[in-house]
Amino acid sequence: MSVFDLIKRRRSIRKYKETIVEQEKLNAVLEAARLAPSADNKQPWVFIVVTDPHVKKLLRSSYEEEWFIKAPVIIVGCAAPKEAWSRIDGEEYWKVDVAIAMQNLVLAATELGLGTCWIADFDEKAAKEVLRIPEDVRVVAMTPLGYQDQEKGLVTRRKPFNTIVRHDKW
Amino acid sequence: MSVFDLIKRRRSIRKYKETIVEQEKLNAVLEAARLAPSADNKQPWVFIVVTDPHVKKLLRSSYEEEWFIKAPVIIVGCAAPKEAWSRIDGEEYWKVDVAIAMQNLVLAATELGLGTCWIADFDEKAAKEVLRIPEDVRVVAMTPLGYQDQEKGLVTRRKPFNTIVRHDKW
Repeated sequence: MSVFDLIKRRRSIRKYKETIVEQEKLNAVLEAARLAPSADNKQPWVFIVVTDPHVKKLLRSSYEEEWFIKAPVIIVGCAAPKEAWSRIDGEEYWKVDVAIAMQNLVLAATELGLGTCWIADFDEKAAKEVLRIPEDVRVVAMTPLGYQDQEKGLVTRRKPFNTIVRHDKW
Repeated sequence: MSVFDLIKRRRSIRKYKETIVEQEKLNAVLEAARLAPSADNKQPWVFIVVTDPHVKKLLRSSYEEEWFIKAPVIIVGCAAPKEAWSRIDGEEYWKVDVAIAMQNLVLAATELGLGTCWIADFDEKAAKEVLRIPEDVRVVAMTPLGYQDQEKGLVTRRKPFNTIVRHDKW
């Protein structure tokens, strides 16, 4: 499928089948993340793959939606700011780096027929406690991963093209 | 081409042909950005498309590399933090939002045979001045866009898989 089709088909999936995700597919989406570009090629990321039912249940302390832990896999995208590049003016890029890698993962999942859902509205402290993530590491985003159990059409509700594109100046 | 191939083929291109980028292709990559997901679907982004030679020259004040302004197009990814979602703990997600949209654009460009190069090491104040970007808007990243004038192989130099993937805990 072309990347244009993948971009249109990717939707926030909030209902998953119990079907296990094949190891080969799981590795493929993580590989898509691994190959992402990052500022100064620092790759300041770690992806925690949660499949243990006990750990998933504990993760509800960070994100309370029941559908979330029903997905067979949850992927937690972490950044190590100390390993990341930052600009001379102090601007940090670890959020950008992990976001690029996660979007690679999400599009790769779509290609393989797997659903995902970008999640940002979690309790970071709770997630770090459950997953024993070091103090100086940050959780940027999470996504469930699995076969979707709902039908969704193509992506909708975006601002009109001419409101987000400008030419040669603001 | 599959997204896996696009991810492997995307390289940081620092040499461009003068060939004009077709309007249809330019629109297609911007459309790929437009359709990206964002926290709470806020879409807090604007993409400035720079093609005016005079403006490109002025942009050298923000990024001094000669090859940069030789590309027929420069796309400047901006965020409006005031329009963006942020978490209850105050964590901001506009960098993540714009990064997702830019990665869509970059992969779409690869699909269309166009080169790009994520740029973060710019002088933001200078770029804002040249492009008359409002005070409260941020520049997250830029990329040149055009037909590449150098041969590059597949993506290289990434950390080994087993160092960036963990299971059920850090």
